[in-house]
Amino acid sequence: MENNRLRQQIQFLLEIDRLKNIIRRNYLTAGIERRENSAEHSWHLTIMAMLMAEYAETPVNLLNVMKMLTVHDLVEIDAGDTYCYDENAALDKEKRERDAADRIFGILPADQGKELRHLWEEFEAQRTPEAKFARALDCLMPMLHNYHTKGKSWKEHGIVSRQVLRRVSGLQEVSDTLWQFACSVIRDAVKQGYLSE
Amino acid sequence: MENNRLRQQIQFLLEIDRLKNIIRRNYLTAGIERRENSAEHSWHLTIMAMLMAEYAETPVNLLNVMKMLTVHDLVEIDAGDTYCYDENAALDKEKRERDAADRIFGILPADQGKELRHLWEEFEAQRTPEAKFARALDCLMPMLHNYHTKGKSWKEHGIVSRQVLRRVSGLQEVSDTLWQFACSVIRDAVKQGYLSE
Repeated sequence: MENNRLRQQIQFLLEIDRLKNIIRRNYLTAGIERRENSAEHSWHLTIMAMLMAEYAETPVNLLNVMKMLTVHDLVEIDAGDTYCYDENAALDKEKRERDAADRIFGILPADQGKELRHLWEEFEAQRTPEAKFARALDCLMPMLHNYHTKGKSWKEHGIVSRQVLRRVSGLQEVSDTLWQFACSVIRDAVKQGYLSE
Repeated sequence: MENNRLRQQIQFLLEIDRLKNIIRRNYLTAGIERRENSAEHSWHLTIMAMLMAEYAETPVNLLNVMKMLTVHDLVEIDAGDTYCYDENAALDKEKRERDAADRIFGILPADQGKELRHLWEEFEAQRTPEAKFARALDCLMPMLHNYHTKGKSWKEHGIVSRQVLRRVSGLQEVSDTLWQFACSVIRDAVKQGYLSE
């Protein structure tokens, strides 16, 4: 292939196939007896964003949210999925993910590598309405998966309700409707015995 | 939950988890010894669109393309993945998929169900620049997967080069750069013995 730019883009697309092999902690619903991978999780969040953008109290740029959610987990290809309740793994997460971003986004032509890296950094920095909204969905969806698998992953890892509440607390700033909804799911999860108090 | 709108949206999000269980014909690269599912495929296409939009000779609205690619395979939850080279299955594909669209998009609040169905219909009708671009990527990506797994799925199904060429021929109208690239990959696949002439 003589077109070097296209060659880099294709190489990147093949490289990120590996996100389909990064396995998260939560289980899928709908009788699918396996844990979720980060690629299908990212897809689920983009459609969630399309439907839930209406609840963002500060209006968000949907294209930017969808782009951000599409790339937000790519660094896991090298850095692995850091379980959100694993405080030890969180300690060196930043360094691991920064190194991953250098390598993975570095495969692309410089302008596109910069654009995707910026999206990932925007998501991580949690300063813009788009980043806050995207992160809120990223926390809400696995809570739903857990609730609808009777707390399977929560139980496996001994997670208690205040940890889940803290995890979804970013919703308060994003949408009162979604925050109240998350609280009601957590209360019910405790009542049903899916989650310890 | 008292909010009926939100209840419908959540029910839809849980229902479409099943797209992660719809298995396509092509295999993943990167040493992942399994076939791809339609949810992770949809994710891959959204990021491909972000990178490749620059090759669309008729400029496309990227938000619309990304939305379309996110929802384009949802009907497979009921209708299954129809293999693109299976001419028998293609005969009743339209009816199966229309019924699926009625049920699946019908779970959503009416306005959002209508929006998503419209995106799917736009993709299927292949009249807008966005639909043509989205479909072109949807044909190009599995070709890359096949090439980079030494034609594993092509060989399993006895596919020959003119079928693949016909499959990606929509690229001609979308982008000469991507069309020339696809042709060169097919020529090389024949040369390497991944694909029969």
